[in-house]
Amino acid sequence: MIRISIDAMGGDHGPSTTLPGLARVAERRPDARFLIYGREDEVRPVLAKLPKLEAVSEFHHCEISVRMDDKPSQALRQGRWKSSMWKAIEAVKNGDADVCISAGNTGALMAMSKFCLRTMASIERPAIAAIWPTVRGESVVLDVGATIGADAHQLIDFAILGSAMARALFDIERPSVGLLNVGVEEVKGQEEVKEAGRILREVGLKSIDYHGFVEGDDLGKGTVDVVVTEGFAGNIALKTAEGTAKQIAQYLREAMSRSFLSKMGYVLAKGAFDFLREKMDVRKINGGVFLGLNGIVVKSHGGTDDEGFAAAVELGYDMAKGKLRERIEAELQQFHGRLRPRAKDDDVTVAAGK
Amino acid sequence: MIRISIDAMGGDHGPSTTLPGLARVAERRPDARFLIYGREDEVRPVLAKLPKLEAVSEFHHCEISVRMDDKPSQALRQGRWKSSMWKAIEAVKNGDADVCISAGNTGALMAMSKFCLRTMASIERPAIAAIWPTVRGESVVLDVGATIGADAHQLIDFAILGSAMARALFDIERPSVGLLNVGVEEVKGQEEVKEAGRILREVGLKSIDYHGFVEGDDLGKGTVDVVVTEGFAGNIALKTAEGTAKQIAQYLREAMSRSFLSKMGYVLAKGAFDFLREKMDVRKINGGVFLGLNGIVVKSHGGTDDEGFAAAVELGYDMAKGKLRERIEAELQQFHGRLRPRAKDDDVTVAAGK
Repeated sequence: MIRISIDAMGGDHGPSTTLPGLARVAERRPDARFLIYGREDEVRPVLAKLPKLEAVSEFHHCEISVRMDDKPSQALRQGRWKSSMWKAIEAVKNGDADVCISAGNTGALMAMSKFCLRTMASIERPAIAAIWPTVRGESVVLDVGATIGADAHQLIDFAILGSAMARALFDIERPSVGLLNVGVEEVKGQEEVKEAGRILREVGLKSIDYHGFVEGDDLGKGTVDVVVTEGFAGNIALKTAEGTAKQIAQYLREAMSRSFLSKMGYVLAKGAFDFLREKMDVRKINGGVFLGLNGIVVKSHGGTDDEGFAAAVELGYDMAKGKLRERIEAELQQFHGRLRPRAKDDDVTVAAGK
Repeated sequence: MIRISIDAMGGDHGPSTTLPGLARVAERRPDARFLIYGREDEVRPVLAKLPKLEAVSEFHHCEISVRMDDKPSQALRQGRWKSSMWKAIEAVKNGDADVCISAGNTGALMAMSKFCLRTMASIERPAIAAIWPTVRGESVVLDVGATIGADAHQLIDFAILGSAMARALFDIERPSVGLLNVGVEEVKGQEEVKEAGRILREVGLKSIDYHGFVEGDDLGKGTVDVVVTEGFAGNIALKTAEGTAKQIAQYLREAMSRSFLSKMGYVLAKGAFDFLREKMDVRKINGGVFLGLNGIVVKSHGGTDDEGFAAAVELGYDMAKGKLRERIEAELQQFHGRLRPRAKDDDVTVAAGK
């Protein structure tokens, strides 16, 4: 049984999207159980129409919900201890849930997660990891926007966190890890990235196959299982890729509606276009995973539909099933002290949402 | 008449690609004249087969050529004063050419360009600008890899350089300019970016329509005419977009060869696919423009074919015709002292190729 806590109020559409999403998961993952947090008057009516979901769920009323445009500090001040977002996170802290999912605003969710769960003892800063579709399958890319900038040791933390996630999700013994840079030669790039590369090469971690530097075009190629970068470049890479995919989809639509013949061709090749749409479906890869905290939190895209929300919930399910948190703890213990003693940073400021 | 100096030896294929590329330009731009630099034994035989090009060209033998894997320092040491790359750049310095094109290695070309042409009096560091295809047309994006990192004032320099380029190429009176960031709110992002935004808003430059922050997905949307960022994030964004386009092209190929019907559909819609291919043709947007030096240098992709090289040459032609350099000088003079006094930095180290 996997226990999943849900902030039902998060996202642009709230319970009208999150609950139908959960219903899909309930159907596809019979051993999932849900702890649902939200406003009674909004959740109950929707839940009542989804009896199969209701049967595997426990609902908890929360008066307060964090708004999509709340600043992290504001959300913390107003929503701490009592909002649906806080309660869902707290369920993980208290051991009532294995993983928490919210489509609420990223900055608030990260600030509350940090405040409630705290960063792991040997980690300085958490990261947000994304699943990146590649021509070879999928990769883990982090940090895609938890914090701006990272020193060499934080990049190495990200490498350890990301490779534990790759192991939990992709069932790879020793994931290959690359550092995102502007060239593959050792002499190029940011000083922090070069230093992290030097350390990773020298230390020779048993559970990481350190590949070296990778460039932006290696993301789509799937050159490595895990791509490590700081949050500014990572966020820009992620959004640039999403934007490019949308741009090409628009070109394709324009191209296919240009003439009678191309429209005919589109009809004949509809199966192929469905396949392509499936490949490019961003809903399927919805979900940013907060790593480095004492508990796993998954951020769903706020604007997604129920299928997209279901994908984020299933990502959380898979990671709980793959014992991601236990893996990370074991890894870190193994490496602890090997690289350096660390200072703990428990402040709740989150660059992504300052 | 536009006079163009060419390093014929640059690129993966040297004169066998660069000269046929020039021949295309000679056909399409009758008022272009070429100063060709390279090894006699390699250039002469190819040139002899292209009489129309030969008629509008002046060839100069250079014993030395910079290799694609030469380090910038090595290239400078061995190729300064005498290599085909140096001579082509020097032609711009001496006023013999209006613009210089090379497909040689970026680090070496930037190091030599800086050393030979020097940065403009009121500019601290040069940038490489790329033409970015968008759903609305084209944008200028800079810096895509000249240097790592940039402070607020350097970002503002880039905004001025980039908007002058947009004016020269797109014929826009007052280009809109955005700063690439991880969110559009004023409180988000790198300190340097926030400060640059504050200054741009306060100073209110007459020739720039400052839009505010933009995110990675705004690149493909064409939200602004000019996107400003530092070289690390810019290079990663550029290569991520290229990689994503290739990835989707591969998905499309796979999709279209899946079944008999989809193959039939492909045949019927061939015109549409040709249109799409045209839209996605990276050769058509080949050429990184070095801005901020006392002269315009265009870097062509090293691995491109003759049509791609021709596109880079024509980009240089268009900018010379659009009086880019004069525009930049006029702009800078206008702004000079308005923002701050500047320190001049003439060292030749180039982060992109250190």
